[in-house]
Amino acid sequence: MKAFVVEAPFKASVQEVAEPACGPDEIRIAVERVGICGTDHHIFKGEFLSPYPIIPGHEFSGTIDQIGENVSSFTVGERVTADPTLVCGACYYCQTQRFNHCEQWGAIGNTVNGAMAEKVVVPAKNVMKLPDQMSFGEGAFVEPVACVVHGMNQLNAKAGDRAILFGVGAMGQQLVQALVKVGVSELTVVDVEEDKLALAVEWGATRGVLSTHLDEELAEERLFDIVVDATGIPAVVQKAFTFLGPAATYLQFGVTPQGSNVQLDPFTLYHKDLKLLGSMAINQTFIPAFHWVANQRVSVEHLIRRTVTLEDLAQYFQDGPTAKDMKTQLQI
Amino acid sequence: MKAFVVEAPFKASVQEVAEPACGPDEIRIAVERVGICGTDHHIFKGEFLSPYPIIPGHEFSGTIDQIGENVSSFTVGERVTADPTLVCGACYYCQTQRFNHCEQWGAIGNTVNGAMAEKVVVPAKNVMKLPDQMSFGEGAFVEPVACVVHGMNQLNAKAGDRAILFGVGAMGQQLVQALVKVGVSELTVVDVEEDKLALAVEWGATRGVLSTHLDEELAEERLFDIVVDATGIPAVVQKAFTFLGPAATYLQFGVTPQGSNVQLDPFTLYHKDLKLLGSMAINQTFIPAFHWVANQRVSVEHLIRRTVTLEDLAQYFQDGPTAKDMKTQLQI
Amino acid sequence: MKAFVVEAPFKASVQEVAEPACGPDEIRIAVERVGICGTDHHIFKGEFLSPYPIIPGHEFSGTIDQIGENVSSFTVGERVTADPTLVCGACYYCQTQRFNHCEQWGAIGNTVNGAMAEKVVVPAKNVMKLPDQMSFGEGAFVEPVACVVHGMNQLNAKAGDRAILFGVGAMGQQLVQALVKVGVSELTVVDVEEDKLALAVEWGATRGVLSTHLDEELAEERLFDIVVDATGIPAVVQKAFTFLGPAATYLQFGVTPQGSNVQLDPFTLYHKDLKLLGSMAINQTFIPAFHWVANQRVSVEHLIRRTVTLEDLAQYFQDGPTAKDMKTQLQI
Amino acid sequence: MKAFVVEAPFKASVQEVAEPACGPDEIRIAVERVGICGTDHHIFKGEFLSPYPIIPGHEFSGTIDQIGENVSSFTVGERVTADPTLVCGACYYCQTQRFNHCEQWGAIGNTVNGAMAEKVVVPAKNVMKLPDQMSFGEGAFVEPVACVVHGMNQLNAKAGDRAILFGVGAMGQQLVQALVKVGVSELTVVDVEEDKLALAVEWGATRGVLSTHLDEELAEERLFDIVVDATGIPAVVQKAFTFLGPAATYLQFGVTPQGSNVQLDPFTLYHKDLKLLGSMAINQTFIPAFHWVANQRVSVEHLIRRTVTLEDLAQYFQDGPTAKDMKTQLQI
Ligand SMILES: NC(=O)c1ccc[n+]([C@@H]2O[C@H](COP(=O)([O-])OP(=O)(O)OC[C@H]3O[C@@H](n4cnc5c(N)ncnc54)[C@H](OP(=O)(O)O)[C@@H]3O)[C@@H](O)[C@H]2O)c1
Ligand SMILES: NC(=O)c1ccc[n+]([C@@H]2O[C@H](COP(=O)([O-])OP(=O)(O)OC[C@H]3O[C@@H](n4cnc5c(N)ncnc54)[C@H](OP(=O)(O)O)[C@@H]3O)[C@@H](O)[C@H]2O)c1
Ligand SMILES: NC(=O)c1ccc[n+]([C@@H]2O[C@H](COP(=O)([O-])OP(=O)(O)OC[C@H]3O[C@@H](n4cnc5c(N)ncnc54)[C@H](OP(=O)(O)O)[C@@H]3O)[C@@H](O)[C@H]2O)c1
Ligand SMILES: NC(=O)c1ccc[n+]([C@@H]2O[C@H](COP(=O)([O-])OP(=O)(O)OC[C@H]3O[C@@H](n4cnc5c(N)ncnc54)[C@H](OP(=O)(O)O)[C@@H]3O)[C@@H](O)[C@H]2O)c1
Ligand SMILES: [Zn+2]
Ligand SMILES: [Zn+2]
Ligand SMILES: [Zn+2]
Ligand SMILES: [Zn+2]
Repeated sequence: MKAFVVEAPFKASVQEVAEPACGPDEIRIAVERVGICGTDHHIFKGEFLSPYPIIPGHEFSGTIDQIGENVSSFTVGERVTADPTLVCGACYYCQTQRFNHCEQWGAIGNTVNGAMAEKVVVPAKNVMKLPDQMSFGEGAFVEPVACVVHGMNQLNAKAGDRAILFGVGAMGQQLVQALVKVGVSELTVVDVEEDKLALAVEWGATRGVLSTHLDEELAEERLFDIVVDATGIPAVVQKAFTFLGPAATYLQFGVTPQGSNVQLDPFTLYHKDLKLLGSMAINQTFIPAFHWVANQRVSVEHLIRRTVTLEDLAQYFQDGPTAKDMKTQLQI
Repeated sequence: MKAFVVEAPFKASVQEVAEPACGPDEIRIAVERVGICGTDHHIFKGEFLSPYPIIPGHEFSGTIDQIGENVSSFTVGERVTADPTLVCGACYYCQTQRFNHCEQWGAIGNTVNGAMAEKVVVPAKNVMKLPDQMSFGEGAFVEPVACVVHGMNQLNAKAGDRAILFGVGAMGQQLVQALVKVGVSELTVVDVEEDKLALAVEWGATRGVLSTHLDEELAEERLFDIVVDATGIPAVVQKAFTFLGPAATYLQFGVTPQGSNVQLDPFTLYHKDLKLLGSMAINQTFIPAFHWVANQRVSVEHLIRRTVTLEDLAQYFQDGPTAKDMKTQLQI
Repeated sequence: MKAFVVEAPFKASVQEVAEPACGPDEIRIAVERVGICGTDHHIFKGEFLSPYPIIPGHEFSGTIDQIGENVSSFTVGERVTADPTLVCGACYYCQTQRFNHCEQWGAIGNTVNGAMAEKVVVPAKNVMKLPDQMSFGEGAFVEPVACVVHGMNQLNAKAGDRAILFGVGAMGQQLVQALVKVGVSELTVVDVEEDKLALAVEWGATRGVLSTHLDEELAEERLFDIVVDATGIPAVVQKAFTFLGPAATYLQFGVTPQGSNVQLDPFTLYHKDLKLLGSMAINQTFIPAFHWVANQRVSVEHLIRRTVTLEDLAQYFQDGPTAKDMKTQLQI
Repeated sequence: MKAFVVEAPFKASVQEVAEPACGPDEIRIAVERVGICGTDHHIFKGEFLSPYPIIPGHEFSGTIDQIGENVSSFTVGERVTADPTLVCGACYYCQTQRFNHCEQWGAIGNTVNGAMAEKVVVPAKNVMKLPDQMSFGEGAFVEPVACVVHGMNQLNAKAGDRAILFGVGAMGQQLVQALVKVGVSELTVVDVEEDKLALAVEWGATRGVLSTHLDEELAEERLFDIVVDATGIPAVVQKAFTFLGPAATYLQFGVTPQGSNVQLDPFTLYHKDLKLLGSMAINQTFIPAFHWVANQRVSVEHLIRRTVTLEDLAQYFQDGPTAKDMKTQLQI
């Protein structure tokens, strides 16, 4: 089959490789769509824990193509998506509801071969069937939404909370919709581009503010109950802290470069009764996210602004992501 | 001033009464709109704890008309609504976050004179200013939404939960929107009228089922994570219990006649890890509800299907509520 | 090896059976201690879902005797206990943190052969090593404590809550200690025997009340924040409901006979903002329970009032449990 | 009456002042015991928001001496303690369950005259009667325990969590007992004095570690689920962060000097799913704390190592707190 193989950082091409075969309890999927995210770029650039060579691709959908031993609840031809997360289910963290901290944590497309290929093999237990009204594009979008749902679980918002969100790129746009779905009232969004702010407002934000106008526009404002970073930029994080009101909650959703510290005054943490939270990947949130997408609680189709082919991928990664694209998906 | 006075059960009329005067820390409101709800009918019929004579009216909005001593944060002419709840702030329950169980609990329009009059006096601390974009109709709708928000706080839904709601009258329609705003995915609604089901689906339900078709339509269905009663009918409650899935949560929002028991099997409660919850009125949820309404997280304007005048009221209560009306508001 | 085999309801004896062998990812334990609980009596009497013939025993400890393929973190001779729960990890309920509602739910000693034998085979992932200071008796007590911890997770008590507990048999005595460990202040316990009440008071209850003196002794009392049933008697459940105060929580820990309904007034559920909860078995609470027992947060040694041998078992089950014994353990 | 008056920073003496009189809804207490805490030292040194002159004293107990208008539930001669917190009950934060962030926040002994005097006047709603078995020393100890309970509410520990606590002075010793009462299993405590570590172990900690031996003793340790600072020392906070395990919670209970930043890596916050929380004073936790103390869930008598008289106070504050004292109380 054809696959996009990253042989080493910055060295990637479409190659003819052997089709993977289904082991017991596994399913093989003929891939249709694969969402591309920051992690894929990190793998391409050698900034991630992946072994090389590797076939990336952890946000995907397709059609069942082969069924392994012991698998009885699926049939060939069914349209599906799958949670890429691989956990042992046996370690201390798996057994105390912290699956994303599994001692053997892995993920399809990150630590083992993924979906940027004609076929991908996955554990049957990770697979969800797409209902008729759900497109392959949506199917391949459940994975990022599952990260967002984990973020919402961490956040534990209260009805009526006033929120501010920094960064409304692909993830931020989903966070806008998710924040509305967990009860916020006002939702101010901040970004460097007018277009993205406008899109966020269309989908539930109450106000967009350009990052350059932040201080003047929010000068008179009561501080917020919820502050979320989805930029991954340390300077933005530092700034975001200043918007935390009494008993407010901060969510670190964006992934900052490792080792880039910000300043935190423990007196403020104490005195304002703050909650500063992180949210990492997926913790048994794939099924809830699936239900959200299937029922259009989070709409994602409009975020897929570009599709590419296997042949385009090498160049695509060379060029790097462009802000205009929001989500790019690979169409096999 | 003119006021609608219920002198005794089933004995009510518009009368000329003395204007109430503002005491310290109080505000007088020239009333614009008053929502009518089941409790008002109960007061009219003598089925509530009210003293007589009483002026009902606990869901209201209007314009500030007079300002009492010590009140500095309001000015005459401001458009406002107010939480009708009166609590002591001092008792065991007030001091352990159970204000709706205050040992001195009262409410404007229930235990003291309310807003079905040209003027009403309220504690300044209960008052919220309406932003420009918020109509008097919406202002008078914050109170029922505040009950709904308390229900959502009790419920504590998880992102992706599958829900079923019985009864989509005036409260049920708000619950539909609220359930979406706290994260449900699928939301089946059940009622006896097609119209109401259709309206619920328009505002976020995923499927409407006539109560007469319940068993056949849901026969194949996985049981639900959330079951809510908003009918207040014991037989519906009993039926609703049968839709509770593993580790599901049931919310008793509807008010059944006192003393009308249903059967509960404690084995099922245990074996399914169920949570059966009640939700009574407002517990510091007026401000969150206000924010939800002000930001259109819950839309209510379309539920106001009829307005009546002070002069209409006696006849209106005589006739009793009609299903078609959803919410009726008094326009002063 | 010797094993206690229940061939059919009321037909049980010690037999010589083949030693079970370790499959991959499994461990074989030379059994030391096995706690006997109500479920074992139900299996003996044919009142449980078990297949026959079966070797019961789901609360156990022992020494590792053989190690299966792929298991690297254990060695022969280590002292251990194990969670008897068998879940698929793959179904809808397993993947939404409701492992005790797994569609394939099973348990060692309930649905497959258990520990009332010289050897028992268990999945390696279920096994926990006993620290030196932890006795085999304590090791075999982690399982019931894990049920109690699940109950506490359901309950979600607040610091200072006032509680009443019905039934201080073997489980109730653990619940007393657990309720203290999740923050209750006053803790009234009710039972039919003075001795048990005294023991409960020794271990953290603040007052013991004989069930026959209930009404007179609690007549003047403020109603409770937390009410727990650990008798499994429907009449007690019905009575227990009457002690629920405003916004109180009820926990159904006791297992009542299936189909024995109690009366519930939905008006009360609504009007008091009640929470009625069930707690069924273990939901990823074996590790927390293990830590509680290992650190003496819940002390159990004094509840083991009787030990029996394999040879005693048939007679023991014939006689049925006696109130004086609290916990009986089998010593192999 | 005699009172200890701080006229200006570092200028304080016992003076004869007019007895304060009870206003409506108030109660006057003839003071018995007053706990002295860090805040009192800050007031003495001019490092707090207090106006001068002021009579400090916010942790107190005594006997009712006079009763104001409208107060019906108390009688002269009753033994009592009182929550020093003064909140408006009307502002945005009071009405959204954040009383400790009240826009008009004040406290007896901090912003108005307190209990270091023969008499003190307090709002009746703040008063709690001491049961017979509760000493004046314990009564004056409810206030700090109420801070600890707020900390526990913020923390929201799970049964079985493994915890480490830095600083076992007066507050840390209460935190040790409280952490046990909210479900921790292992509890490592760190301090600079062996004596305090030993005392902590006596009251529920599982291990004491000298701060100088921290790295070597915990080198092999699994990271913790809960990390609490009760030193208020920024360098300790920075160190404490390194003990946070996957999905761990950090509680800033200690009060660091304002403006003394520590370094926080947002990548770690994200990647470990951390929760960093603050806990400031009392948020409707006086009643729960009262119940905990009254029922000996938190024992405090042994922490009162020294009592002083009004006449001793000036010298006492001049000398500053000494580590050996744990809690010093003023005996009037
Ligand atoms: N927590 C998780 O599990 C998880 C999962 C997936 C992704 N992530 C992280 O989430 C973050 C967002 O991902 P993404 O795919 O949405 O990336 P993205 O498309 O690059 O979004 C970041 C957005 O922030 C904007 N931005 C840049 N500077 C800003 C500033 N000073 N103030 C406000 N906005 C600013 C960017 O604008 P320009 O593009 O014009 O610069 C962009 O629109 C990344 O850090 C990613 O690694 C986390
Ligand atoms: N918890 C609280 O704080 C709170 C606050 C306000 C109101 N409530 C209670 O909430 C409930 C709903 O109030 P509401 O104003 O929405 O009343 P409503 O307009 O009468 O709504 C009840 C709805 O249930 C429908 N219904 C009747 N029989 C049914 C059946 N067998 N199955 C399904 N639906 C059925 C009714 O249809 P028809 O009208 O055609 O019969 C109606 O549409 C009431 O019990 C009210 O007292 C509670
Ligand atoms: N939720 C779970 O996961 C789980 C797990 C294990 C067990 N359980 C259940 O928990 C319950 C308790 O188990 P157990 O082993 O402790 O049983 P147990 O030893 O029989 O305890 C029940 C206690 O209740 C007493 N009692 C009887 N009538 C009473 C009354 N009217 N008022 C108050 N107390 C009364 C009994 O006294 P006498 O013995 O003198 O009659 C006995 O001390 C059982 O129903 C069991 O099935 C539940
Ligand atoms: N959050 C709230 O609402 C609240 C309420 C009350 C108090 N507080 C704060 O809580 C903190 C503790 O109060 P406290 O009255 O218990 O004070 P404390 O008696 O001074 O306790 C601090 C303890 O930390 C020890 N310590 C010093 N250096 C240390 C190190 N490197 N590692 C570990 N321990 C070290 C101290 O030992 P030495 O005494 O020998 O130096 C002392 O035993 C203070 O910051 C106080 O302001 C907060
Ligand atoms: Zn794992
Ligand atoms: Zn009250
Ligand atoms: Zn399962
Ligand atoms: Zn306030």
